[in-house]
Order: sequence, then structure tokens, then C-alpha cells
Amino acid sequence: MPDETPDTVETQYVTLCEPPNELVLKSGAKLGPITLAYETYGELNDERSNAILVSHALTGDAHAAGYHKGAKKPGWWDKMIGPDRAFDTNKYFIICSNVLGSCNGSTGPASIDPKTNKPYALSFPVVTIEDMVNAQKHLIDHLGIEKLLCVAGGSMGGQQALKWSIMYPDCVHSVISMAANPRSTAQQIALHEVARQAIMADPDWKNGDYYGGSIPARGLALSRMIGHITFMSEKSMEEKFGRKLIGKERVGYDFSSDFEVESYLKYRGDSFVQRFDANAFLYLSKALDYFDLAEDGKLMDAFKPAKASFLIVSFTSDWLYPTYQSKEMVRALKASDFDVSDIEIQSNYGHDSFLIEVESQSKLVSHFLNRIRKSVVNV
Amino acid sequence: MPDETPDTVETQYVTLCEPPNELVLKSGAKLGPITLAYETYGELNDERSNAILVSHALTGDAHAAGYHKGAKKPGWWDKMIGPDRAFDTNKYFIICSNVLGSCNGSTGPASIDPKTNKPYALSFPVVTIEDMVNAQKHLIDHLGIEKLLCVAGGSMGGQQALKWSIMYPDCVHSVISMAANPRSTAQQIALHEVARQAIMADPDWKNGDYYGGSIPARGLALSRMIGHITFMSEKSMEEKFGRKLIGKERVGYDFSSDFEVESYLKYRGDSFVQRFDANAFLYLSKALDYFDLAEDGKLMDAFKPAKASFLIVSFTSDWLYPTYQSKEMVRALKASDFDVSDIEIQSNYGHDSFLIEVESQSKLVSHFLNRIRKSVVNV
Repeated sequence: MPDETPDTVETQYVTLCEPPNELVLKSGAKLGPITLAYETYGELNDERSNAILVSHALTGDAHAAGYHKGAKKPGWWDKMIGPDRAFDTNKYFIICSNVLGSCNGSTGPASIDPKTNKPYALSFPVVTIEDMVNAQKHLIDHLGIEKLLCVAGGSMGGQQALKWSIMYPDCVHSVISMAANPRSTAQQIALHEVARQAIMADPDWKNGDYYGGSIPARGLALSRMIGHITFMSEKSMEEKFGRKLIGKERVGYDFSSDFEVESYLKYRGDSFVQRFDANAFLYLSKALDYFDLAEDGKLMDAFKPAKASFLIVSFTSDWLYPTYQSKEMVRALKASDFDVSDIEIQSNYGHDSFLIEVESQSKLVSHFLNRIRKSVVNV
Repeated sequence: MPDETPDTVETQYVTLCEPPNELVLKSGAKLGPITLAYETYGELNDERSNAILVSHALTGDAHAAGYHKGAKKPGWWDKMIGPDRAFDTNKYFIICSNVLGSCNGSTGPASIDPKTNKPYALSFPVVTIEDMVNAQKHLIDHLGIEKLLCVAGGSMGGQQALKWSIMYPDCVHSVISMAANPRSTAQQIALHEVARQAIMADPDWKNGDYYGGSIPARGLALSRMIGHITFMSEKSMEEKFGRKLIGKERVGYDFSSDFEVESYLKYRGDSFVQRFDANAFLYLSKALDYFDLAEDGKLMDAFKPAKASFLIVSFTSDWLYPTYQSKEMVRALKASDFDVSDIEIQSNYGHDSFLIEVESQSKLVSHFLNRIRKSVVNV
């Protein structure tokens, strides 16, 4: 049983899709058994009608809110999830699960393949956003929930939320998509590809077979440095760092770091290595590349099966998932008479805004959820 | 003597700053002798008043226009330089030299250190934009030119042009700065740093001592892939590639390339390795980092010594050197009553626009140069 307060939480694990009932992936490959790590906050009501699935971004995990025992830092969306917060745990039962293919408790390339008793490494099948959603559906079934009040997420989490509305229209009352997109663009694919090349160029990567030996730390750190630049905006980097030097009066005229922004990026790269698996990054970035709601057709047609209400949020300075991509979805949804609320939030924080702009997001989310909750009760 | 037509040109070389008259660098280090590779197009008039110095960008070279014997491709700014072109070789004597620290004929880290008879590698001193300008000044002196009609360039070339107006105010009638900036921002430094880390993480880099052995090809290619994304705009990438697959019907569900944009970047990375030295890239990117016209003071004060007329050109979709940086310079110059023409050109080509937007640039440049030429003749 989950803790009832969001202040001390424990990650839970469930094993699903045991053979012969494996998950059939989009590629056609079969995968099972699958373990999903998940956390829950708040209480499921007797009608089982107050459940909200929160989906995490590329390198996120199941620990969205509260504190693990003894931990100093709370979950990644703690400011948004809790009593009287946007995702109000006095009203809602919040579920967050680590996606399939990741490395924070759910089955991914670093997991042990029961067939060989060795880590899957590159023998792990390539997974897609659709496969992540299918795995989450098994978790929701396992929790005895027939219809989610909402699926919400930012970035890759938003992609999952959008897919839920199309793949399981009868299981989703509403969708909140933040800083997401209807498909990965050439620039997004290009940025993923250089991050992957950074990992694969590390001699310690060894074609993915590094488990039990040296990990491709340098390549993985480099991939994160690239990523981190894309998560911030030009302006937020300038405001945070500008040309500030690292505790020295003048530049060193050598190849050590001179500027704070350099050492900050290295720090972010090195921290990432402590918490993430290089192969998992390869798999998840590939899932992003493959993401295309319309599958080269029309976005309006892609949304045809959906029945949900939508809240689509984008951020002015997000150059990784530019606002025009969210607006494209809003146009397609409105053209088909969906119930759509949309807003472009003025923010300097770039793609990371959905993790930082708590105040403006909270109002939007709590109003939207209140409205959805009331309409559901009336039904 | 240079060829008189821009159709067949040869690179020339001059050795300057022979000991004991070495170049004193901004760092305080001394460097000499220095070889500069350069090309010229058109003819110097008897008054020696029609000379224009064109400065190249980060990985450019002295071959700005015309064709080398047997070559299929012309110089990097051929569409801008030639008879009746923007830099009209019927009127002007155009000089372009490879910058100090580079690897295309001018002295840089891959050059032989006469003291050791081995390549300098990392014993080469760190050079700055100011040092490049000082080396160019020696070349201009060598050519017997007292005052340049114009110094013009895009990106790092624009930085050199701007510095010329401040460092040698009596030697420059005018400056054309395209897609340049008054200082490198945190994001620009961050992007250089990840490109450097990509090179330095390659085991073949060997702390710079790779000459005569395997070169750090993979790291250098990766650094170029990162760079190339920043040279294009999100929109130009989308228009050129979108989600086009590489000659297949569906994605491969593996880690080979699926999308054209991936193979294009790899191609650009691999071509770069054929033509550029990894250490030279490290040095030149560091020179960019150190570039700050105002040296943490006020930009208006930085321009105080200058006497030139200015043409400042920026491009709407250039996110690497955003237009606000050019506008900042225009404001500072106008506030001090300089003769400034400025334009923000509507273009989708990102930072590379100055290499591509020939038509709109040509009009601006030829009008500006005509005006400057007339004012000089009147003097």
C-alpha cells in the first residue's frame, strides 16, 4: 500500500505481461515479463473515478512527488503534486510509472533477460511511445481503474498523454500536454542522433555490452551536456551564467574551463552518469524519433478516435519543442470540435519551463481538472 | 602575382613576425615566425585605396572566390566576390587570409614548431580574435596597404571586422559585419565546449599529440554534427529533411540511421574530418569564447576609438548569433553618432544565411561599398 501522505513515498513494482501473454510491440517483437516501477499519491475513491496518470519526460522516473525515506530532494514534479497543489492529492489519486525501456525500475536494456540471465543490452527490442502507453495500460488495469480522469505530462510525458487519448479513447476523460509535440521534427531527431553518437563513440560503450565493466561515462556525460543546452533557453543561460568566470580574474588561455557555464554543463553531465544508463538513453531517444501522431498523414485524422478534453500548454522560449508544434495540435483539435483549452505561457526557462513554471501551470491545471471532475461526476 | 581573373586562383603564402620580432599575443605569449595563407582577387589601384579584407568564419580558409586549378567547387564566398558581384573585382582588390590558429595554410597547432621540428600541438599558444587581426595587419602592411576601404566578414569573420575598426581605426574606412555578435554568450560558449569535449573524449586525440598517427576522426566528426545543427534553422532543417526516411518504407527499429537528417549530419561530419584539424578547431573555438568587444564594460565605450562606417547585417532565423546581438551593436554605434546602416534580413537559413542569401546581401553590400568608395575619393 502506498503511503497516504506525499511526504514519504515508496516506489512499488509490478510484473506484467508474463509469457505467453507478452506485450506485442509496435515493431512486431514480443516482450515479457515486464516490470513497471510506479508510485501513487493520494487515495483512489470508491468509484475509482479520481485517478490521474502522470507521465514523465525522457530521463524521468516514477518518483514524481514526495520524499523517499531519508532523501533530501523530493520527486521531479513535487511542486505540482500534493495536498492543495495542482494535482491535488486531497482530491485525486495520482499514479506515475517509469516508462518501458528506461532504467529506473522498469524493464529496459539494463534489465536481466530471463532467457539468458544476462542484461538485455542491445538485444532489448526497440520500444516506441505507443509501447510505453500499452505497458501503462496494463498497470492501470492491474490497479483496477477502468477510466482515468486525466493523463498528464510534459515533453515525452505529453507525447504519452496524447497517445493515450488516441489508443484508449474510452479510458481517458482528459489529457494535459505540456511542452510536447505531435511528431519529432528533423532538428529534434538531429539532436537525438548527436547525443546517441556521443555515447556510441565512447570505447567503453562496446556496442552496448558494458554491464559489469566500465560504463561509457564520458560519452553519456557528453550526450547530457548537449541535451542540457537544449533544455534551457538562450536567455535563461545568459541570465544564469553570462560570461561569468570560474573564480578567477581573467581567462586562462588554456583548455581548462574558463566560464561558469562550462563547469555547470560538466557537472550536469557527470551527475547524469550517476543516475542513468547509456543504453536506456539510446532506446528512449529512438522512441522520441519514431514519435509521429499522424504517421505522415493528417493530424486531424490522427485525433479522430479520441474522445477526451485537452489542455495544451506550450512555452514561448522552448526552442526544443517550439510552441508552433503545440499550436498545430490545437488547430487540429479545434477543427474537429474537441474541447480544447490552450495557452502559450510567457517564460524564459526554455523546454524546462514545464518543470519550473509552477505558479502559472498550477492555476491552469487545477481549473482544468476541476472542470473535468465536475463533468465526470455529472455523468 | 595573383591571377587577374577570379576564375583560376592560387593561394599565396607569406612569412611574417620572424624572431626577434615575434607577434605578442593577447595572452602575453610570443609567436613567430608566422605564415599566413592568403588569396587576392581584382587589382590594387595605384592609390592603393581600393583594398577590401574579407575575413572568414570559424572553419573557413583563404580561398574565398574563384577556382583552384582543376577544382570543381569555387571558394566559400564566390557568389559574393567577382566581376559585377557584391565585392566587385572590377572595382576592388579583395584579400582573404586564413586566420592565425587555423589549419589551411596559416600557422596553427598542426604547424611545425621551428624550435622542435615537431607539430606545435597543444604547445601552440592560445590565440584570440585580436591576435588574428594583428596577424592580418602584418599581411596588409606587407602588401603595402595603409588603409583598407573595408573589412568584411560573417560570423567569426564579422568579429574580426569589428575588432579591426577598434584596434586600427586609422586603417579602416568601413566595416561590414554579418551574422556576428559583440561578444560570445553563455549558449555560444556552451555549444563550443560540448564540441571541444567531443574531440577531447576521442581516445585518438591523445591530449593533442595525434600527428603522424590516427587522428581523432570520430570526435571531430561529432563536433561538426553538433555545429551543423546550429548553423541551420529549425525551419530550414524541417524543409530540407522533415521526417524523410533513408530509402526505406518504414523505420528499422534498430540503431542504424532511419532518417535522412541523420545520414546528412554524418556525411557533414565525415567530410569535415577530411579538411580540418581537430586541434585547430579547439583553438579557434576558444578564440570565439574569449571574444568580447566590451571586455565586460560598455559596448559604447568599446567602439570609442573607432572611426569607420558600419554595415551591420543579421538574419531572422539565426539562433546561434541571434539578431538581438547585432541590434545591440547598432544601438551602441548609433548612440555615438557613427555612420551605421543596419538590416535584419528575413531568411530561413539560420546562421548559414550569410553564405546563402546572396541576392539580398549583394544589393546591400554593393550600395554600401559604392557610398564608401565615393566618400573616400572625395576625401
